[in-house]
Amino acid sequence: MSKFWSRGLDGLTPYTPGEQPRQSGLIKLNTNESPFGPSPAVTDVLRTWPAEQLRRYPDPDSTALCNALAREHGVRVDNVFVGNGSDEVLAHTFCALLRHDQPILIPDVTYAFYRTYCALYGITYKAIPLDSEYRINVSAYEVPCGGVVLANPNAPTGIALARADIERLLASHPDQVVVVDEAYVDFGGESAIELTERYPNLLVVRTFSKSRGLAGIRVGYALGHAALIGGLNRIKNSFNSYPVSSLSAAAAIASLGDTDHFASTVAEIIRLRQLVAGELGRLGMLVLPSSANFLFAAHPACPASRLLAGLRQNGVLVRHFVSPRTENFLRITIGSESDCRALVMALRKVLSDRSG
Amino acid sequence: MSKFWSRGLDGLTPYTPGEQPRQSGLIKLNTNESPFGPSPAVTDVLRTWPAEQLRRYPDPDSTALCNALAREHGVRVDNVFVGNGSDEVLAHTFCALLRHDQPILIPDVTYAFYRTYCALYGITYKAIPLDSEYRINVSAYEVPCGGVVLANPNAPTGIALARADIERLLASHPDQVVVVDEAYVDFGGESAIELTERYPNLLVVRTFSKSRGLAGIRVGYALGHAALIGGLNRIKNSFNSYPVSSLSAAAAIASLGDTDHFASTVAEIIRLRQLVAGELGRLGMLVLPSSANFLFAAHPACPASRLLAGLRQNGVLVRHFVSPRTENFLRITIGSESDCRALVMALRKVLSDRSG
Repeated sequence: MSKFWSRGLDGLTPYTPGEQPRQSGLIKLNTNESPFGPSPAVTDVLRTWPAEQLRRYPDPDSTALCNALAREHGVRVDNVFVGNGSDEVLAHTFCALLRHDQPILIPDVTYAFYRTYCALYGITYKAIPLDSEYRINVSAYEVPCGGVVLANPNAPTGIALARADIERLLASHPDQVVVVDEAYVDFGGESAIELTERYPNLLVVRTFSKSRGLAGIRVGYALGHAALIGGLNRIKNSFNSYPVSSLSAAAAIASLGDTDHFASTVAEIIRLRQLVAGELGRLGMLVLPSSANFLFAAHPACPASRLLAGLRQNGVLVRHFVSPRTENFLRITIGSESDCRALVMALRKVLSDRSG
Repeated sequence: MSKFWSRGLDGLTPYTPGEQPRQSGLIKLNTNESPFGPSPAVTDVLRTWPAEQLRRYPDPDSTALCNALAREHGVRVDNVFVGNGSDEVLAHTFCALLRHDQPILIPDVTYAFYRTYCALYGITYKAIPLDSEYRINVSAYEVPCGGVVLANPNAPTGIALARADIERLLASHPDQVVVVDEAYVDFGGESAIELTERYPNLLVVRTFSKSRGLAGIRVGYALGHAALIGGLNRIKNSFNSYPVSSLSAAAAIASLGDTDHFASTVAEIIRLRQLVAGELGRLGMLVLPSSANFLFAAHPACPASRLLAGLRQNGVLVRHFVSPRTENFLRITIGSESDCRALVMALRKVLSDRSG
């Protein structure tokens, strides 16, 4: 606390991202990064980019990238908003579209940053419990509210919601914005993008950080009705005229152009996810059915905090969220095949040390 | 306006950045970009960067860049905050350090984004008039307030304030934050950075977009007491954990390492500024004394709007701010020597067409 801080700042609890270790040699399965690099087309961008042109500001509207995304998703360019990672896009979304008199609805177990945005922008929220199987039950959201924010697939559970459920939510809240955060949808979820045409209250948020292997460039985007995109642009243009660097926009466009790399790396992650889920099951762990690039898993007899520490001793980083409903689970990113094997070996060792 | 927008959003007027024309062949002297590319070391970064590593999130604290900036400016790393361009750094500054009960003080003629940030964060401000010579008179700021924000050199006037004046302001407001935006200081101003050690209420904001020729990468920073930096980090970590892309951080570090390129390009801009100021004077224009990479100039007999249109017809873009005290001035960025010559020729033509 400092006398120089704005009113209320001392009461704000920031989000804590997963560790980015400086120590090398660790197997990093804690932040849902892709084990595969981005498309080789991104390397070509870097090798040929005229650095002299970096003296210019980027296009403030990132028009070329918005056009590429509009083509990719079959929408119009005024249905697209881009930002400095999907976290920035989400922050602007909370600020532009979710400050109303009624509290917004979020799942009790979901991406923790949603609560942080509420605190940052003075938004009240009501946390709707996942059911006993850690699923989102959309009928529990059919109550008066100022908006709804869901991740689909949800994080950290990995469980996906059917498009029909999203549509039911949209229909039940025609006067509120429903935000669907599809950071992980490419790994097996059903996207709601096609619903944006019929539902002016739907905003879909996406990222290049997961399935496109480009967490380092910081590009995220939102798709929705032009009125929602207009609201986002009004906040963006009151915050930072040029949020996406010229290089990042070019890298993102190059990535969108390489359909093969995208499809093959996503397919490989899904294959490895099934392999790891099977192995964890054989080790006696409960594994939630994942449609994401991670697994959420618990051992009935060994506390997650002990597994976490044991894995770290064996050079494997995973993520642990300490709250009542998640504290016995670990969120484990699907890495490369060798990372996955190392994870399973380390888990087996930690579990046998315990019983030995 | 849309029913889905947050309360108050329809009343928010965004900042309008200078045009980034898609049409090529224009001489672009409207956004204070450097006419020179960044250090060749930035090209080396792009040519050798392992694109595969972009699958990783950046270091959320941009530690390597903060360390490089701490060395550059002779401060400790906990005195450094970095962000996605100085606009983001300023936005976080308004949010974290300037929301108090009293209005903040800004000059009546200054960077227009300050008013936008006030509107975005619900901060009231009092605009203190520049004196009749368009100078900031610090004694006019010795009134109760919630904080002070100045650009030094000021924009769009280009006029610099002596460090002794900044110190007087700091001493007269020991309980308020004084923000000094030094976007243009490298072109001839006196930096206040050395005062950060003695004045815990001073925050200096800087950018890589002007003197370092790197507007395209979006990196800005702030220097100040650790308590101020802590406040900024609390907002940043409640907004976006990873604001600076891995590539942008690496490019900025490379730029800091090339002292010669920095010194020679800044010296050349200062030389060209003197040359252009002389030519504009010979064309009968009033030119304010600039310590920046632009000139603020008016013609006693030809309205700025007419000059603006005439220059554009001749392929030269400059900036015009339509408000009572600035509407007869043009802000003209110092470009390359050939850009400067083209500007002077075009101005001469427009002025002689008028009188002819």
